Amino acid sequence: MTRSPFARLRDLLRDVPAPAGWDPIPLHLGEARLVEPPLDVAALDAVDGWTRYPELGGSAELRTAYLGWLARRFGGSFGEPADAGLMTDAELAADAGLAVEPTPGSKQALAVVIAQAVRRARARGVTDPVVVLPNPGYPTYLAGTEAAGARPLCYPGTVDDGPADDGSGLADPVDALAAAVAAGAGRVAAVVVCHPGNPDGETLTAGQLARAAEVARRADAVLVVDECYVDLWLGTAPAGFLSDPAALADPGLSFVVLHTLAKRSGAPGLRSGFVVGDRHTVAAYAEYNRTCGVSLPRPVCAVSAALWSDDTHVARARAALARNWDTADELLKDLPGYRRPGAGFFLWLPVPDDPGTTRRLWRDQALTVMPGRYLAVDTAAGSNPAAAGKDPGVDTAAGSNPGAGHLRVALVHDEARTEVALTRLRAGLT
Amino acid sequence: MTRSPFARLRDLLRDVPAPAGWDPIPLHLGEARLVEPPLDVAALDAVDGWTRYPELGGSAELRTAYLGWLARRFGGSFGEPADAGLMTDAELAADAGLAVEPTPGSKQALAVVIAQAVRRARARGVTDPVVVLPNPGYPTYLAGTEAAGARPLCYPGTVDDGPADDGSGLADPVDALAAAVAAGAGRVAAVVVCHPGNPDGETLTAGQLARAAEVARRADAVLVVDECYVDLWLGTAPAGFLSDPAALADPGLSFVVLHTLAKRSGAPGLRSGFVVGDRHTVAAYAEYNRTCGVSLPRPVCAVSAALWSDDTHVARARAALARNWDTADELLKDLPGYRRPGAGFFLWLPVPDDPGTTRRLWRDQALTVMPGRYLAVDTAAGSNPAAAGKDPGVDTAAGSNPGAGHLRVALVHDEARTEVALTRLRAGLT
Repeated sequence: MTRSPFARLRDLLRDVPAPAGWDPIPLHLGEARLVEPPLDVAALDAVDGWTRYPELGGSAELRTAYLGWLARRFGGSFGEPADAGLMTDAELAADAGLAVEPTPGSKQALAVVIAQAVRRARARGVTDPVVVLPNPGYPTYLAGTEAAGARPLCYPGTVDDGPADDGSGLADPVDALAAAVAAGAGRVAAVVVCHPGNPDGETLTAGQLARAAEVARRADAVLVVDECYVDLWLGTAPAGFLSDPAALADPGLSFVVLHTLAKRSGAPGLRSGFVVGDRHTVAAYAEYNRTCGVSLPRPVCAVSAALWSDDTHVARARAALARNWDTADELLKDLPGYRRPGAGFFLWLPVPDDPGTTRRLWRDQALTVMPGRYLAVDTAAGSNPAAAGKDPGVDTAAGSNPGAGHLRVALVHDEARTEVALTRLRAGLT
Repeated sequence: MTRSPFARLRDLLRDVPAPAGWDPIPLHLGEARLVEPPLDVAALDAVDGWTRYPELGGSAELRTAYLGWLARRFGGSFGEPADAGLMTDAELAADAGLAVEPTPGSKQALAVVIAQAVRRARARGVTDPVVVLPNPGYPTYLAGTEAAGARPLCYPGTVDDGPADDGSGLADPVDALAAAVAAGAGRVAAVVVCHPGNPDGETLTAGQLARAAEVARRADAVLVVDECYVDLWLGTAPAGFLSDPAALADPGLSFVVLHTLAKRSGAPGLRSGFVVGDRHTVAAYAEYNRTCGVSLPRPVCAVSAALWSDDTHVARARAALARNWDTADELLKDLPGYRRPGAGFFLWLPVPDDPGTTRRLWRDQALTVMPGRYLAVDTAAGSNPAAAGKDPGVDTAAGSNPGAGHLRVALVHDEARTEVALTRLRAGLT
């Protein structure tokens, strides 16, 4: 299995001392410190909740809160909470609506959904299934693919380097995704889309998301849309996959969208997210998770329901995030390749030598940043053989790493600390 | 996937009203209400812990607490905490010692370890891997096997009905396990042992556990020992798998032992357990769990470390449990087949018609109990084809269910409520 970027970063900095007396500032991890979320402390310290088994599928209150947030955020109504984990096959077939299910964070849900998609592809006779995923991207896309015994087939996970075909200066990532699926030629088990993107924070339009769905459906692949950053927008709120009723009405599409309180509410310690998708795909996840996975403790259900029902703290987090980006605009805008993204707290910044720069920033400025190459499959290492020699236009050329030459810098701290951090970053880079 | 026993029980009782005005008493679920565990409430309501990412692999304090408990409980010293998740292959090869890793409860760990064992068997060329597991047994053994695309090969999970060959009236379950492994003939990916047993609470000796290990090692199968009830003994403390230094010294054995606070501390809401095993097997689990699984939140680490370091509340739980069994002895000892087990809170009681009796106990006595057949593979339904026609002596005969004709009754409440419940049970059964 590919080593985690955090383990690799630790190794990279192991022998490098930070300057004595400096306050180290971590910018390598997307752990938001923007606002303190309003956690229901009374629920957390009620002993009874921790001494009882979790409710399989979460509390009714929590499931209702998911649907309330989905309706507020993406428009329309998603009806009554459907408990796909309890439905019979006949009930599932009778209703083409959506279903929701709690997840103990996106990592586990991604890995399970990818594994189930791979098994589904094998069941239809695919002996060498592939998963189409963005590269660079969230490391669990790749780790889950490898753990499922499938191979990755990558498309560019950032849009800063591609050729422009619409005059915007940015390539359409869905074109690249479609090309990767075409290269997969009937072997594609799942298509992973990260929207807004990690690491570059770029957003897709509803039309682009619908096109990605159409590509996945035609390939009989499960569409996995990771929208963990969808509430942390800058400027205007991006559409979500659920914003497009046409895409949802397609009964042939298998899909899940992942949401989490780790980013929206800055509460990654809760391990609390959910999937929403077509009933069959969600029911398969729910059935696995209830017998083989991890259910949300009752106190976590209570706290989470309150957070999904509240948009005020998220608006405050967005305002704090916007101030951080204002600081970044001010301090870094003349750095080559600097761009304020559509959403999220990651600055994806071109640098000449990402590991070397990372070591220097720690040695000279007591900053930890993430080398871009650690977030990407290094095709030179043979990690992406699925596409090798098939369609070099789809994947990066052999011997290259599409994350190399970039840093990922998380603007997750409060305004004052962010200003200190970015002042140091500027000093370290210029 | 086989439906969960809890879903089946709900279906069974859906149209049955309980007697009006009676207090319903749940006896179908192993949710201990024996003592209130000493949870560190200050850790649970510290907001900071929930707004930070978990530490991958848990806190150092927690890992130290595991080893302290293992040493107190099973004797000997297990040395410094080994963080297998961070070790390189060379480091792993250099040290044959044990490793520990937190789990978000036993369900997930069982499913992941079984899936990894199945993948390991496929990697050595097994095209049709099987998992040897007790039947009846904890449902995740079967669900994890099915989710991994393997087939179950069952051995009797209870010892009440087997032929006696040592004059004790009980068959040696390890003989049956060995016969199942032999029937697996080179295709065995994992061997699951539940000690003390669920549902019947019978314990194995250190010698029996060592024999099970030897059988697994010779078959190149991963040994999975579920010891979740090992601290809830009645009478004398049973050995654990780690009690036998000889078994541990065998460098050819791949194994994990599962422990959890769900039973020991009656805190299933924490979703907090751990695995201990050889470094390779634990490292594989740790690597998966850190990239694709669920890590323990920081507050849960703090609370859990305190619980693993305290034996007083467990002794109090055992005393309460013994009083419940004294009540059961008094009220039920003349029921045919009644037996006080070696450990745990489950009464495994023969009855003529387990679903019918379950419905009657709800209708007449407002008691929920678990029909034994729901905890077992029904061979009539073709759920266990791996052994079919191969060695009928290993598995139950076609058309039968080895859990049928029993109830599982959980003595999990306080003394007064248990007395009410068992008085009703007696009235309902006689």
